[in-house]
Amino acid sequence: MHPFAPGPRDRVEAIGEGGLIAAIRRWLGNACPPAPAGIGDDCAVLPPSRHQQLITVDPVIFGRHFDAAVPPAAVGAKLLKRNLSDIAAMGGRPRAAVVSLCLDRSTRVRWLREFHRGLAITARRHGVALVGGDVAEAPGALIASLTLLGESTGTRVLTRQGARPGDWIAVTGRLGGSLASGHHHRFTPRLAEGRWLARRPEIRAMMDVSDGLAKDLAALTPRGARAALDLGTVPRRRGCTLAAALGDGEDYELLCAIGSRADLPALQGAWRRRFPTLPLTVIGKFVRNPGSRTAPDSLPASGYEHLRPAP
Amino acid sequence: MHPFAPGPRDRVEAIGEGGLIAAIRRWLGNACPPAPAGIGDDCAVLPPSRHQQLITVDPVIFGRHFDAAVPPAAVGAKLLKRNLSDIAAMGGRPRAAVVSLCLDRSTRVRWLREFHRGLAITARRHGVALVGGDVAEAPGALIASLTLLGESTGTRVLTRQGARPGDWIAVTGRLGGSLASGHHHRFTPRLAEGRWLARRPEIRAMMDVSDGLAKDLAALTPRGARAALDLGTVPRRRGCTLAAALGDGEDYELLCAIGSRADLPALQGAWRRRFPTLPLTVIGKFVRNPGSRTAPDSLPASGYEHLRPAP
Repeated sequence: MHPFAPGPRDRVEAIGEGGLIAAIRRWLGNACPPAPAGIGDDCAVLPPSRHQQLITVDPVIFGRHFDAAVPPAAVGAKLLKRNLSDIAAMGGRPRAAVVSLCLDRSTRVRWLREFHRGLAITARRHGVALVGGDVAEAPGALIASLTLLGESTGTRVLTRQGARPGDWIAVTGRLGGSLASGHHHRFTPRLAEGRWLARRPEIRAMMDVSDGLAKDLAALTPRGARAALDLGTVPRRRGCTLAAALGDGEDYELLCAIGSRADLPALQGAWRRRFPTLPLTVIGKFVRNPGSRTAPDSLPASGYEHLRPAP
Repeated sequence: MHPFAPGPRDRVEAIGEGGLIAAIRRWLGNACPPAPAGIGDDCAVLPPSRHQQLITVDPVIFGRHFDAAVPPAAVGAKLLKRNLSDIAAMGGRPRAAVVSLCLDRSTRVRWLREFHRGLAITARRHGVALVGGDVAEAPGALIASLTLLGESTGTRVLTRQGARPGDWIAVTGRLGGSLASGHHHRFTPRLAEGRWLARRPEIRAMMDVSDGLAKDLAALTPRGARAALDLGTVPRRRGCTLAAALGDGEDYELLCAIGSRADLPALQGAWRRRFPTLPLTVIGKFVRNPGSRTAPDSLPASGYEHLRPAP
């Protein structure tokens, strides 16, 4: 369904801001609690929490993250799941979200209904309360930015910092071909996996793979080291080349550093008992790199670079 | 300064996403703490809080909330202040913010630098940590959505619900002419005033005036009542008509309901001692309306309605 309607019928301008906000509350149903815990006041009010708080924001933009071929319910699901993947990458649990919607007044009400239904189903599945947001007009655009709040689930949040030279590098699932396969909107955020990994003391650092392994790995690489990958072990989605697995991005898998003295067979056995259908693959290690204090140099510079003209 | 550059020099596409994020960290300076408390990890991490948490989101959109005539530093300041006004309206204290930036690749780097400087100055002034965000390409657009987290400062947050028939209606400051006077980006969010009012037990409900008094007042009006205003008392900005004061919007003043048995002279005396230069004006009261269980009917239906064609 194309998100913009050619004629005046079914356009959001026919119901206006007040009508749209009332409709959004209806579409979200019990995924949106009553005000002030949900939509309807100047701020949403959440109870105190004795855990560390996590906050992340990611948008979906028409023409960039989705087009008219992606079902609107999948766009709504993707918007939340992109952010859930960031909470998963810290080993956290999601709590609540707000959405800033910027849209042309010709946007179809039916498109928005399906979008919000997809968002609400995903929110219920993961225990996220959709507590508020904002609706504003942006000529020619259709953009939804979701801010997700979460909290730590144990004594630590797992950050990107903490890997050391000698640590193993591991990744969940399979990489590459996300756009062509539809994985970019069908994926399952690795929340349970992230919480499990955060409780294992041998995991030293973690992040999610969103721009492609080759680019994202730099953020996990400790100073004075480089990532030495055994390229034959990089788990690829069926039919994908190595270049696709390294550079396509939108994988939403977890990438972690495992302490060099870890008992790898014991860790992988425990993983397989807990997550029997999802591989956790060791793909290389961080090695000392006396000549460099910067990013890894063993990988081709690929991965998705935003805001650049296409090469 | 026009935010889009005509030639390739000084465009954001010349530095790319990585260059822009590095520049943003530099521009924000100490308004952005080191990761994971600030930019640089999958989520930002905030310490636990024993207070109720507040969350709100509002964007600024080129062509809607600002144009090339508004200095970019004022746009950055306005983005944060719009959200601070929502925290003020609950009697809260701001904590931290994330920004989702959606922009055309022809956006001027210089415009973005001034925008972030204005944002950072305002953040420091109000004790807000700018902890993260996202940068994405949106052809033809320049939109920044800011999500602000805050917390309650006393035993209660002051919501829009709670007014009763018989309660007085009061407003801070002066209304109308916000766009023409530049108030829409020069205003001071009423944070200290909101906290003060939330600690006074005679204040029963509160909100900020953003779409215009006539429209916003409906949200404060209790069921079975209507707002009866003494229109001559509505405090107007110099040179403004009553219609402008009721309908222009973007006032960012506080509107509250005062219990019918309150000692008004004592309240106003205490207010004047604490805030000697800002008026708190009683402009009417909520009266029983046996014929109606809906919104107030004593006001003309005006105020800014988004997403509608101009009348």
